[in-house]
Amino acid sequence: MGDHTLYLDDLYVGRRFTSGTYRMEEADMVRFAAEFDPQPFHLDRRAAESSVFQGLAASGWYTASVAMRLLVTGGLPLAEGIVGLGGEIAWPKPTRPGDMVHLVRPEIEILLPAVARDFRRKRNPQSPPSFSVFLPWLDFINREPREGE
Amino acid sequence: MGDHTLYLDDLYVGRRFTSGTYRMEEADMVRFAAEFDPQPFHLDRRAAESSVFQGLAASGWYTASVAMRLLVTGGLPLAEGIVGLGGEIAWPKPTRPGDMVHLVRPEIEILLPAVARDFRRKRNPQSPPSFSVFLPWLDFINREPREGE
Repeated sequence: MGDHTLYLDDLYVGRRFTSGTYRMEEADMVRFAAEFDPQPFHLDRRAAESSVFQGLAASGWYTASVAMRLLVTGGLPLAEGIVGLGGEIAWPKPTRPGDMVHLVRPEIEILLPAVARDFRRKRNPQSPPSFSVFLPWLDFINREPREGE
Repeated sequence: MGDHTLYLDDLYVGRRFTSGTYRMEEADMVRFAAEFDPQPFHLDRRAAESSVFQGLAASGWYTASVAMRLLVTGGLPLAEGIVGLGGEIAWPKPTRPGDMVHLVRPEIEILLPAVARDFRRKRNPQSPPSFSVFLPWLDFINREPREGE
């Protein structure tokens, strides 16, 4: 990860990080759905017209997976990686073919210092693999980024 | 979906449904990670040894996607499909290559009758696409099913 690798000492509540953008391609959406979420409204434009989505929509798990890609490949290159323990997830509206998506206001909201305290791998590279718990603020939006996002 | 298609009238709290099993193949886990979660502990056995996982582990989003596959291809073939509005997700422990996974105790926990009330597509096929809100109880476990699961 080169010079930009981040360690726990570099994290703080309110720290912003960046996100790239990702274009939701119909072929990728359909390929994912065929493997993991084979329902007509994720697979076929015509069948999707008469569904609750009224048109082809990405599986929510494809959208979530793309969000993870944007997080991992974005501006928060943590030395030990990013591992999820869990969280809440919501899909307020469908993602469509051709949508450009990115993470909105990616920002660390909560950092648990009791967990983080003992891990200072940056200063002691011989210490065991370290981790902390933080909650990023992640929204996912399907338009071009605006200034400040 | 043939004779087994289910409608809202068929749903009730406590209704059980079935789940198949799925073998987590290393090649599939790595392929998924390369596209959506490209971190060393999901991509490479050797690199994963020294990670927090102490061995190759599936991306949590791969595990979630496989769970969706088991739900969609299992014993709850809803006429209008299964669409997620959101929920909570947790990954209490890693999924490893070769693990056999299935849904444990798949059961409808909550059904919102106020939403469901007006939709009886089974009796009135001309009604618009219908939906209800229900919360399935879904645990995901990586061993062979036991009797009663």
